[in-house]
Amino acid sequence: MSNKDLQVLRNEIDAIDVKLLELLSERGKLAQEIGKVKQVSGVKRFDPVREREVLDKIAENNEGPFDTPTMKHVFKTIFKACLDLQEADERKTLLV
Amino acid sequence: MSNKDLQVLRNEIDAIDVKLLELLSERGKLAQEIGKVKQVSGVKRFDPVREREVLDKIAENNEGPFDTPTMKHVFKTIFKACLDLQEADERKTLLV
Repeated sequence: MSNKDLQVLRNEIDAIDVKLLELLSERGKLAQEIGKVKQVSGVKRFDPVREREVLDKIAENNEGPFDTPTMKHVFKTIFKACLDLQEADERKTLLV
Repeated sequence: MSNKDLQVLRNEIDAIDVKLLELLSERGKLAQEIGKVKQVSGVKRFDPVREREVLDKIAENNEGPFDTPTMKHVFKTIFKACLDLQEADERKTLLV
């Protein structure tokens, strides 16, 4: 194995992970804003129709190398984290 | 609820999801390349020291709103998907 090749590839992955972290955090902040809008209006946080639409769009745009079930699984993990964030925020509000 | 506000926020999330999909796919391709380099040299795909380093870097750079255990969980899901990709590639090579 060329250690240099491996290191170059790992550096590229590290750069992607930094961007992923930023985008995920941004997505979390937007989910929090959506949670607030929904809380004010008494609308339920979880919207299965919206989730289905988002997953369908991901399936449409997925060009690999991950197969679509795998990519959907990753996004469902992200959705769950966002929903937990909204729930934590709502609990905080209720405690005030 | 202002439906317009909600729609604007959702559009922003959709734009992030497109970028996430691209970055995840790019990460998958790099993982495949790393898998090939490792296969040629007979090195094990899973490297717990490297995974620990990557997770430590994520913890260091995480500025919220997700807490670090949640962010690590999301990244572990991504690592697992990448490892599965490498394993599938290796199986294909062994079958040829």
